[in-house]
Amino acid sequence: MSGTATTSLAPARERLTTLVAESVDLRHAADLVEWDERVYMPTGGAPVHGEMSATLRRLAHEKFTSAEVGDALAATEAAIEDDADSDEGRTIAITRREFDKATRVPADFVAEHARVVSAAQHAWGETRAASDFAAFRPHLERIIGLKRQYVTFFPPSEHAYDVLIDDYEPGMKTSQVKAVFDALRGRQVELVRRLAERPQLDDRFLRAPFDEQDLIDFSVDVITAFGFDFSRGRQDKSLHPFCTSFGADDVRITTRFVDAYPLSLLFGTMHETGHALYEQGVSPQYQRTMLEGGASLGIHESQSRLWENIVGRSLPFWEHFFPRLQQRFPSQLRGITLEQFYRAINRVERSLIRVEADEATYNLHVMLRVELEIALIAGELEPADLEEAWNGRMREYLGVTPPNAAKGVLQDIHWSAGLFGYFGTYTLGNVIAAQLARTFRAQHPALDDDLRRGDASSLLAWLRTNLHQHGRKFQPSELVQRITGGGIDPAPYLEYLEEKYLAVYA
Amino acid sequence: MSGTATTSLAPARERLTTLVAESVDLRHAADLVEWDERVYMPTGGAPVHGEMSATLRRLAHEKFTSAEVGDALAATEAAIEDDADSDEGRTIAITRREFDKATRVPADFVAEHARVVSAAQHAWGETRAASDFAAFRPHLERIIGLKRQYVTFFPPSEHAYDVLIDDYEPGMKTSQVKAVFDALRGRQVELVRRLAERPQLDDRFLRAPFDEQDLIDFSVDVITAFGFDFSRGRQDKSLHPFCTSFGADDVRITTRFVDAYPLSLLFGTMHETGHALYEQGVSPQYQRTMLEGGASLGIHESQSRLWENIVGRSLPFWEHFFPRLQQRFPSQLRGITLEQFYRAINRVERSLIRVEADEATYNLHVMLRVELEIALIAGELEPADLEEAWNGRMREYLGVTPPNAAKGVLQDIHWSAGLFGYFGTYTLGNVIAAQLARTFRAQHPALDDDLRRGDASSLLAWLRTNLHQHGRKFQPSELVQRITGGGIDPAPYLEYLEEKYLAVYA
Repeated sequence: MSGTATTSLAPARERLTTLVAESVDLRHAADLVEWDERVYMPTGGAPVHGEMSATLRRLAHEKFTSAEVGDALAATEAAIEDDADSDEGRTIAITRREFDKATRVPADFVAEHARVVSAAQHAWGETRAASDFAAFRPHLERIIGLKRQYVTFFPPSEHAYDVLIDDYEPGMKTSQVKAVFDALRGRQVELVRRLAERPQLDDRFLRAPFDEQDLIDFSVDVITAFGFDFSRGRQDKSLHPFCTSFGADDVRITTRFVDAYPLSLLFGTMHETGHALYEQGVSPQYQRTMLEGGASLGIHESQSRLWENIVGRSLPFWEHFFPRLQQRFPSQLRGITLEQFYRAINRVERSLIRVEADEATYNLHVMLRVELEIALIAGELEPADLEEAWNGRMREYLGVTPPNAAKGVLQDIHWSAGLFGYFGTYTLGNVIAAQLARTFRAQHPALDDDLRRGDASSLLAWLRTNLHQHGRKFQPSELVQRITGGGIDPAPYLEYLEEKYLAVYA
Repeated sequence: MSGTATTSLAPARERLTTLVAESVDLRHAADLVEWDERVYMPTGGAPVHGEMSATLRRLAHEKFTSAEVGDALAATEAAIEDDADSDEGRTIAITRREFDKATRVPADFVAEHARVVSAAQHAWGETRAASDFAAFRPHLERIIGLKRQYVTFFPPSEHAYDVLIDDYEPGMKTSQVKAVFDALRGRQVELVRRLAERPQLDDRFLRAPFDEQDLIDFSVDVITAFGFDFSRGRQDKSLHPFCTSFGADDVRITTRFVDAYPLSLLFGTMHETGHALYEQGVSPQYQRTMLEGGASLGIHESQSRLWENIVGRSLPFWEHFFPRLQQRFPSQLRGITLEQFYRAINRVERSLIRVEADEATYNLHVMLRVELEIALIAGELEPADLEEAWNGRMREYLGVTPPNAAKGVLQDIHWSAGLFGYFGTYTLGNVIAAQLARTFRAQHPALDDDLRRGDASSLLAWLRTNLHQHGRKFQPSELVQRITGGGIDPAPYLEYLEEKYLAVYA
C-alpha cells in the first residue's frame, strides 16, 4: 500500500485490510478444498468436501458483504487523499466495486440461482447423455430468466449483457465484444475455408502410443524453461486440467493424459502454465488483498494462449525442443522432420467440439456461443429456437452440422452452470495474446532467436514487468492500453493467424 | 439424532446443529490445509497456508463460542426431555462441556499462549541443536506459568493437573493416571532389566537396504487386510507420519521411509492405520456433529497400538505375512526363519529416545515425562531442576544416562508446543489396547487362527460395534467400562508384556 492516507484513517483502513484478508483466506481455503477434491480426495469424501467448500464460500461472502466492511470502506473512502492510481486508491475502488456488486444481489436470488443451477447441471448430464435438448430446455429457460432478473439489480447499461460480461471481464461492454467479433468473423471463416481446400496435413504419427510419465517429464522440462517456479507451485494430475492459486506463492496446475492424442498433455500443461506464470508474477505485496490474482478471465486467457500457442506451437520453440522430444520418443518420431512435426501440431480441422478445436477454428466456436447468449439475454432468441440457431451457425462458420444435440448445443457445461458472459473471454484472450506478442517483438526483435535456444526468459521478464506484477490493479482495457498504447484490437491476431496458417498449409 | 425433543424446541436445536456443523466445516478445512502443508505444499506456500489455517481456526473458535451458540444451547437444554444417554442428550452435554471450556479461557490468554508457544517452539529448535537446556529454560518457565494460570480458569479440581489432562482425556483424573503408573512402573522396570540380562537379539538383517516403494506396496497389502478403506481414505508420504480426518469418509494417513530402519515404514503405517480404522468406523450420522471423531487421545492410541503391536508384532500375524514379505524381499530375508524375524522385530533396547523406543520400554519414557509434568504443575519441581530430574529417572527406569540435553530433556517438541497433559495418553493407550484384546479374545478365542490366515476382520468388526461407531459419545472410562465391564486396568497389559517378552527372550 502506498502511504496516501491521513493518519486519522488508520483504524478504518486497518480494519478493512484485515476483513478483506480474512475473506481472502476463506476463499483460498475453499480453492484448496476444491483443488483437493479434483486431485487427491478419496471418492467417499465428496459430501464432506461439498459441505466444507459451501460453508467457506458462504462465510467468505458474508464476511466481505458485512456491514462492518461497508462502514470501514465508507470511512476509508471519505478520508483517503485523491490518489486514485495508487495501490491504495485502486484497492478501495475495487473493494467498492465488488462490495456494491455483492450487496446488490439479494440473498434469496443467490439461493434460488444455486438451486436452479444445481438441478440444471444434473439435468445437463442426463440430457446430454440422451442427446435430448428438449428435455434440457426448461432448465435453460429458468436460468435465462434468472440472468435477465440478475441484470435488473444493476444500474441500466448500454446492453443488458454488459452486466453479465462484467463479472468476468470488468468494464468490458457488449458493443466492444461485438466489434472485435465483427472484425474477426469474416476473415477467420474465410481463412478456415481456404485451409480446408488445401491438401490436408498428416498427423497420424502423433496418435501413436506415448508413455505418460515420459510426456510428463518432458513437459516439466518445457515449463521449467518457461519459468514455472516449482518452489512456489506444483503439478498434479486430474480429470480436467486447471490452474488454481492461493496467492502468488502457491500456484498449482494439473494435467491429464489422453490416449487418443497423447501430446495434448504437453499443450495442456503449457496452457495451464501460462495461467500459473501470471499468478506467480503478481506483486508479493498484493497477497491477501483485493489486488491479488489476475485482472480478468480474458487477460488470464491471453497468458495461457500466449504460452500454449504463440510460443508452444511456434517453429522457433520446436527448433530447440523437437530434437529433445525426438530423443525421448525415438520410436514414435523416427524419421519425422521438424517441419513435419511443426505442421502436424498445427493441423486445422473444422470440427464439432469446442474443447477439441485447434487454434485456427477455436474463436468460431466461441463467437457462435456468445452471439447466441447475447440474443437470448436480449430476448431476441428463445431457448426453443436455440438448437436450430446453433446448428445454422455451425454450418455458416465451420461448414459442419452436429449430428445430435450432444455434439452440438448440449456439449458445454457452462450454460447449465449459469455461466453467461464467460465464453467471450476465450476469444478476447486470443486477441490480446497476439497484441502482447506484437508489442514485445517490436521492443525485442530477438524473441525467436531466444526461443531457438530454449530461452523464454526475455518474454517472461517483460510480461512480469508490464502485466503480471499488477495483479488486478488495472482493468483489462486499461492494461492493454498501458502495454500496447491502444485498445483491444483484433488486427494483430488476424495477421498472426493468416501468416502462420497460410504458411503451415503452403 | 434420536427424537427426544419437544417440537417447540425445533428452531433452537436446528440453529445449534447448523452452527456446530459450520464450525466443524471450518475445523475440517483447517485440518485439510495442515494436511496439505505437510504432504504436498510447495515450500513457498508456508506463509499463506499459515494465514489460512490461523483464520480458519480462529473463525471456528469464534463461531463455536458465539453468543448465538450459547443461546441456542441454553434453549435446547431447557427444552429437551431427560434422555441423557440418547445421541441428542450426549450431543448437548458435550456441546455444553466444550462451550464452557472454550468460553472460560479469556481471548487475551489464548493470544498470549499462542505468542509464548510460538517463540518457545522456535527456541526449542535452536536450543536442542545446541543441546543447551539453560537457554530453553526461560521459555519453559513462561509456559508452565501459563499452564498454572490456565488451571485457575476452571473450577477447583482434585489436582491442578486434572484440568490439563481433561483437554486430551475427558474426565480422566491425575489420581487415576498415577494409579495406573504405580501399577506399571515396578513390574515394567523389572521386566526390562531382566531382558537386558539375557542374551541380546540380532536384528542386523533388518538394517539392510529395503526398497521404499516395495515396502509401501507391502504395507498397502497389510492395511488392506486390516480393513483400511481406500475409497474413504488415502496414504501419502510426509516427514513425520500422522493421521487426519475430515469426518469418517475421508481419513488420511501418512508414512515415511527411514534408511536406518526401513521396516519402521511398515510399523508406522500399521500404527496410523489403527487411528484411521477408528475414524472410518465412526457412525456416519455423527458427521459434522460434536460426536464425530475419537473419544480421546488415549482411546485413539489404544487403536494404533492394538494394530501396530498386539496384531502387527504378533507371531500369528507374521505366520501369514512373513512368507509374503520374504517373497518381496528375497535377498534381505534369505535364510531368515519366521522365528528369527519375529524376535528381531520385537528386540528390546534400553535407549534414550522415546520415538525410537520399543514396545517394552515405551511406557517408561512416558511415565518419566508425566511424573515430571505433574510435579512442575504442582510446583513441586522447578524448571531449573528439570534436567537433573530427567536424567535421574532415566537411570532409574532405563539404566541409561543422556549424554546431553538434546538426547534427554530437550528431545520432544511437546512442552515447547504447550502440550502439558498429553504424554500420559500414550501409556493409557497401551493399557487400554491390552484390555480390549483380552476382552475380545475371551469372546472370540480364534483370533490367532484368523490372523494366521491373514484375516483381521473379526477383530475389526468387534471394534466397530463396540468402540468405533460411538465416536465421542462416551468418555474414555465409560467406554472401557461398557466394553470390558471394568475400569482402566494395567493388569492385562503387564501380563501381555511379560508373557510376550519373556518368550521372545527365552
